[in-house]
Amino acid sequence: MAGNSFGQVFRLTTFGESHGEAIGVVVDGCPSGIEMSIQLIQDDLDRRRPGQSRITTQRNEADSVKVLSGLFEGKTTGAPIAAIVLNQDHRSNDYANLASVFRPSHADFTYSQKYGHRDHRGGGRSSARETAARVIAGSIAKQVLARVGVEIQAYVSQVGRIEMLDAKKWYSAGEIEKNIVRCPNQSVAKQMIELIETVKASGDTIGGVVTGIIRGCPVGLGEPVFDKLHADLGKAMLSINAVKGFEYGDGFASAQEFGSQQNDLFVETTKKRGSKTLTSTNHSGGIQGGISNGMQIEFRVAFKPVATLLKSQSTVDIKGKKAIVKPKGRHDPCVVPRAVPIVEAMAAITILDHWLRNQAVKLEK
Amino acid sequence: MAGNSFGQVFRLTTFGESHGEAIGVVVDGCPSGIEMSIQLIQDDLDRRRPGQSRITTQRNEADSVKVLSGLFEGKTTGAPIAAIVLNQDHRSNDYANLASVFRPSHADFTYSQKYGHRDHRGGGRSSARETAARVIAGSIAKQVLARVGVEIQAYVSQVGRIEMLDAKKWYSAGEIEKNIVRCPNQSVAKQMIELIETVKASGDTIGGVVTGIIRGCPVGLGEPVFDKLHADLGKAMLSINAVKGFEYGDGFASAQEFGSQQNDLFVETTKKRGSKTLTSTNHSGGIQGGISNGMQIEFRVAFKPVATLLKSQSTVDIKGKKAIVKPKGRHDPCVVPRAVPIVEAMAAITILDHWLRNQAVKLEK
Amino acid sequence: MAGNSFGQVFRLTTFGESHGEAIGVVVDGCPSGIEMSIQLIQDDLDRRRPGQSRITTQRNEADSVKVLSGLFEGKTTGAPIAAIVLNQDHRSNDYANLASVFRPSHADFTYSQKYGHRDHRGGGRSSARETAARVIAGSIAKQVLARVGVEIQAYVSQVGRIEMLDAKKWYSAGEIEKNIVRCPNQSVAKQMIELIETVKASGDTIGGVVTGIIRGCPVGLGEPVFDKLHADLGKAMLSINAVKGFEYGDGFASAQEFGSQQNDLFVETTKKRGSKTLTSTNHSGGIQGGISNGMQIEFRVAFKPVATLLKSQSTVDIKGKKAIVKPKGRHDPCVVPRAVPIVEAMAAITILDHWLRNQAVKLEK
Amino acid sequence: MAGNSFGQVFRLTTFGESHGEAIGVVVDGCPSGIEMSIQLIQDDLDRRRPGQSRITTQRNEADSVKVLSGLFEGKTTGAPIAAIVLNQDHRSNDYANLASVFRPSHADFTYSQKYGHRDHRGGGRSSARETAARVIAGSIAKQVLARVGVEIQAYVSQVGRIEMLDAKKWYSAGEIEKNIVRCPNQSVAKQMIELIETVKASGDTIGGVVTGIIRGCPVGLGEPVFDKLHADLGKAMLSINAVKGFEYGDGFASAQEFGSQQNDLFVETTKKRGSKTLTSTNHSGGIQGGISNGMQIEFRVAFKPVATLLKSQSTVDIKGKKAIVKPKGRHDPCVVPRAVPIVEAMAAITILDHWLRNQAVKLEK
Repeated sequence: MAGNSFGQVFRLTTFGESHGEAIGVVVDGCPSGIEMSIQLIQDDLDRRRPGQSRITTQRNEADSVKVLSGLFEGKTTGAPIAAIVLNQDHRSNDYANLASVFRPSHADFTYSQKYGHRDHRGGGRSSARETAARVIAGSIAKQVLARVGVEIQAYVSQVGRIEMLDAKKWYSAGEIEKNIVRCPNQSVAKQMIELIETVKASGDTIGGVVTGIIRGCPVGLGEPVFDKLHADLGKAMLSINAVKGFEYGDGFASAQEFGSQQNDLFVETTKKRGSKTLTSTNHSGGIQGGISNGMQIEFRVAFKPVATLLKSQSTVDIKGKKAIVKPKGRHDPCVVPRAVPIVEAMAAITILDHWLRNQAVKLEK
Repeated sequence: MAGNSFGQVFRLTTFGESHGEAIGVVVDGCPSGIEMSIQLIQDDLDRRRPGQSRITTQRNEADSVKVLSGLFEGKTTGAPIAAIVLNQDHRSNDYANLASVFRPSHADFTYSQKYGHRDHRGGGRSSARETAARVIAGSIAKQVLARVGVEIQAYVSQVGRIEMLDAKKWYSAGEIEKNIVRCPNQSVAKQMIELIETVKASGDTIGGVVTGIIRGCPVGLGEPVFDKLHADLGKAMLSINAVKGFEYGDGFASAQEFGSQQNDLFVETTKKRGSKTLTSTNHSGGIQGGISNGMQIEFRVAFKPVATLLKSQSTVDIKGKKAIVKPKGRHDPCVVPRAVPIVEAMAAITILDHWLRNQAVKLEK
Repeated sequence: MAGNSFGQVFRLTTFGESHGEAIGVVVDGCPSGIEMSIQLIQDDLDRRRPGQSRITTQRNEADSVKVLSGLFEGKTTGAPIAAIVLNQDHRSNDYANLASVFRPSHADFTYSQKYGHRDHRGGGRSSARETAARVIAGSIAKQVLARVGVEIQAYVSQVGRIEMLDAKKWYSAGEIEKNIVRCPNQSVAKQMIELIETVKASGDTIGGVVTGIIRGCPVGLGEPVFDKLHADLGKAMLSINAVKGFEYGDGFASAQEFGSQQNDLFVETTKKRGSKTLTSTNHSGGIQGGISNGMQIEFRVAFKPVATLLKSQSTVDIKGKKAIVKPKGRHDPCVVPRAVPIVEAMAAITILDHWLRNQAVKLEK
Repeated sequence: MAGNSFGQVFRLTTFGESHGEAIGVVVDGCPSGIEMSIQLIQDDLDRRRPGQSRITTQRNEADSVKVLSGLFEGKTTGAPIAAIVLNQDHRSNDYANLASVFRPSHADFTYSQKYGHRDHRGGGRSSARETAARVIAGSIAKQVLARVGVEIQAYVSQVGRIEMLDAKKWYSAGEIEKNIVRCPNQSVAKQMIELIETVKASGDTIGGVVTGIIRGCPVGLGEPVFDKLHADLGKAMLSINAVKGFEYGDGFASAQEFGSQQNDLFVETTKKRGSKTLTSTNHSGGIQGGISNGMQIEFRVAFKPVATLLKSQSTVDIKGKKAIVKPKGRHDPCVVPRAVPIVEAMAAITILDHWLRNQAVKLEK
């Protein structure tokens, strides 16, 4: 109800503010007996953490995960898994000058109106720092999904107006992680990095798009009519800070087309691919009628530019009077490189949740 | 869990197949004491019903709503409201030739794999006929929202490549309903209708975009961090048949822009507009940090072309062997004109649900 | 949230008032492919219906079930199953004199305060007529459970101070249904019937206890720590009209005893009984730590006497002024004979829901 | 789904094993702006903690609460409140001899069957240590409820066969806390303590009953038909370790009585008591039709004797072979004195949750 939980069977609840003691997560509903590597969780956190490269914010936090419950002798027990990351680099002073003004396009104003108070220390609960908790849960989900052959990948396919081609393909992790912007096309990545550096130098920010790919997903995930697989994936992505749009398969482009162009024809499976019936094209993006069809699932997530600029902007203060805001110190010129593991995490959580939900409708063990 | 319910406080559960006895809905959590017009519900159903104009399917159903419970002397009682629409025009014969083949880009294949059986009579539960139940619930929600000054509107802003300008504005209901495609720009509407007629004549189908606008929404709706207002709106829209994408505010376009272009600056409210602080622009689309900020909420929903073509298509049968499918009789060349009341319904349900959820976090009555 | 749904995977939502058009239920999450007999549902409804014998209310309704969705060719499809019972015998006139007074120990007062209006026609939503909807859902659940070998039984073990011995045993359906009070001990049943007839003649009512037994339940149902199997069974029973208490295993009696008396010792299973480890006694009532242990599940449900008396009682009217209330016509002297199928229904729904929930925590198919 | 959460608006999720790093809780949905005293939380924890008197287990843990999030400058912020208690006194060695046997009437067997592994260190997740997390959440709920005038109290009303009279009255906290058994009747308390000491000396255990009283509860809490206030209270209590029964108002005794004895007559409120209509008796225990009626809410909770005895007991080992189990060191001869704050906690959580749920059905702010 209060919105800090996600998922129905594999269900996470996150907590913590950007400048409090810790941020953390409780994962309920994780199957028991699964080997769980803390190192893999830490690796994903490291891909999300600030200060990881010259094109991200310089807030520098080690973001070390500590698991408090739910594991015994390296395996899940079926009990809730709680994990925390202590906050270290609280430069609350950076925010002192923001205590009485509303930052444009931030959640300052809406939070203060909804909750009747103001936590000006870096956004409090609305800070993207909360997504570290999601990355922990997502990494747990990825390790579980690996056991049933489902793999998840995300990468940056657009920064500003620089877009890569072939943005619906599966790439090797090496190609994606080879550069700091996490775009698998190395020459496009170079242009993206240059753009972000220019933007950063000017104190401005820039938006972008992250592509997500899921492969190995069995036929049958998704619960019509409201909990269609893409509807839950869409909600998962739209719940990430700064996301403004979601599409899967051909998405908005399909609105321009004819049925005779968009329909995916089923083809006889002459070659051995198990018993799967497959389609000759994948405009559907791996989902038909809200249920996975065994093809690769493909989606795109649009991120707006980060609202914090190192520039003076006109605004109002908490009394409604005109004011000028100019943040100090550090900012993140483009959020998409760090958003990659967050998109992966939310996708993994959604798919595992539906994987387990799909078990619950079966009578036979 | 099984996916046939939506909403947390104002919660609907739909039931019924396209060729069964009836389709229907139970709405739980509707506040008591609200005057409820059955005629207004019927009016919305009439905007959704097949056979309403020459550019929709010719399946002809009166779609008469019958309320079974929850109203007493014309008002809601706080008890669940159940309503049904009897199915009349079951031409199951139209589907007899489809019993053993999978129709391309339909849910035939995924449903039969997930549930282990085949209901070939027009799609069964996966048919868009289910959305009539949503329209009933949405009409109830709209009548409740009217009491607190919230208004919801949708219209067709794109068909194929024909797009209208000013597609983020509020229009009069008269302008929208003046033409059968439900586009408030009359000359663009004319082009859209011509395109749809051409497409229909060729047995093909075409996609489109519906714009949704919400005004009068108070500050404070939306529950961070997962149940952000736009995340739940997005899920609501993505759960509608044939939807492939959702964006709000500047959406995917914002991914191309700089923060200095996208930020909405707060302005002093010199004129009397209550105590609201407003912004000079509305790139945010009325939502910041997942919470409504008092500005107009704007979103766009992409619909793919309908999968049923009156053309021969290659496919496989239930044994995986190559086959040809050619539906007979009737088809819907473009779904967006009839989708308008469905988009309104899902928006109304989502907003009312969040309106009521927002009550639940307040200690003081 | 508004309280008209129960269950998480196998989830029912009931609707309808005692004097409206119909009462009904939507069951979501029923596994697909299960043969479903409408006759068995009707049989259970007949065991609950008023007017079935001389010791129940004379309100006479056929209570014919009509299924609207979710079945195809006699089997469940995985889609929601909606069913209704039309109301026939609305003698609203019987209630005309009650329009302005609050009946003692009825829900009149609390409903009118909570919902701000008064539906005096026989209790509206608070009427026990709502339980017919539960019986339909329960009968569906029983038919599903039969497929996995789980059986559920209830019987009357106490009426007033008349109690039967051996009230934790499984009896044949024949023994229970042989008499109109549904107590498997025929001589005790005779005494119970005599007591109820005496009570009826005096216009008074009498309470009683229903015992529930579940056998064939596998080890492992129940989700610690809050959704312990007995906690959900207890809630299910306490949600039935007129129920005042729930206990399982030795219940309240165990509070008087020593651990050395209450502990159930595990015994070697020398005889072939599958791989089950069993206990020599069953003080635990088949559940340990909130999880079924493979032994027979046993519980008891206390019903207070029905509040409607055919006697004058002092009360207040809707303005708070002193008044006298005297219902006319028909009343139910003792609710427990008709409560038997309701207890069975709620038990079946709870067990099937947990059976399916237990599937969802397993990774391997 | 996996059972570690409770409540719908005010919702807690607990985590942690008895011998892991920490146990803890996340509370979501707590209203913002409420002053929250950590000391009051600690006080309640101290009433639950082991080793507090000579009649409880000698496991000695300080049980110091640490709040990680959700408070700012001493007040709730509307964000989730996470709190942990580090585990200190892990004498896992005490349990080494239990690794391969199932302890009678413990959850060892059912957990190992359900989750496929064995955490023998003191019960792991099934340990009553989990209830410390509930006490934290309950103390938060009590502080919120105090703001709206609702008070909650529990006390021991029975140990073995020693029962106090007047066990439905509200007592001063001083009377209850004056003795180590938490029974407000001092002479009965003395007998209870003597009984527990005798039982302890013999290595045995004894059951008991805790009475709960809620006063100041407004009319209107409870959501018919499934989430009746007493149904949710019952589930809350039944979810506490070792609870075997729940009744409210006259409970099981009402099953023996006539309607003319049980009905609570409404009385004119000649004296000033606000606008409340009250009843002359309270057999209903403050709830009619599942909704609070403004009278005092009264209920009783039966606890079985603790299963861990310092005596040899016959059992089987994990291979199903006969074995003897004899726990070492420490045990809790009677759980009810320490259960008092747990019953209060679960009652407070349930009432606050329903208080907030009741807000959500109201249209007007």
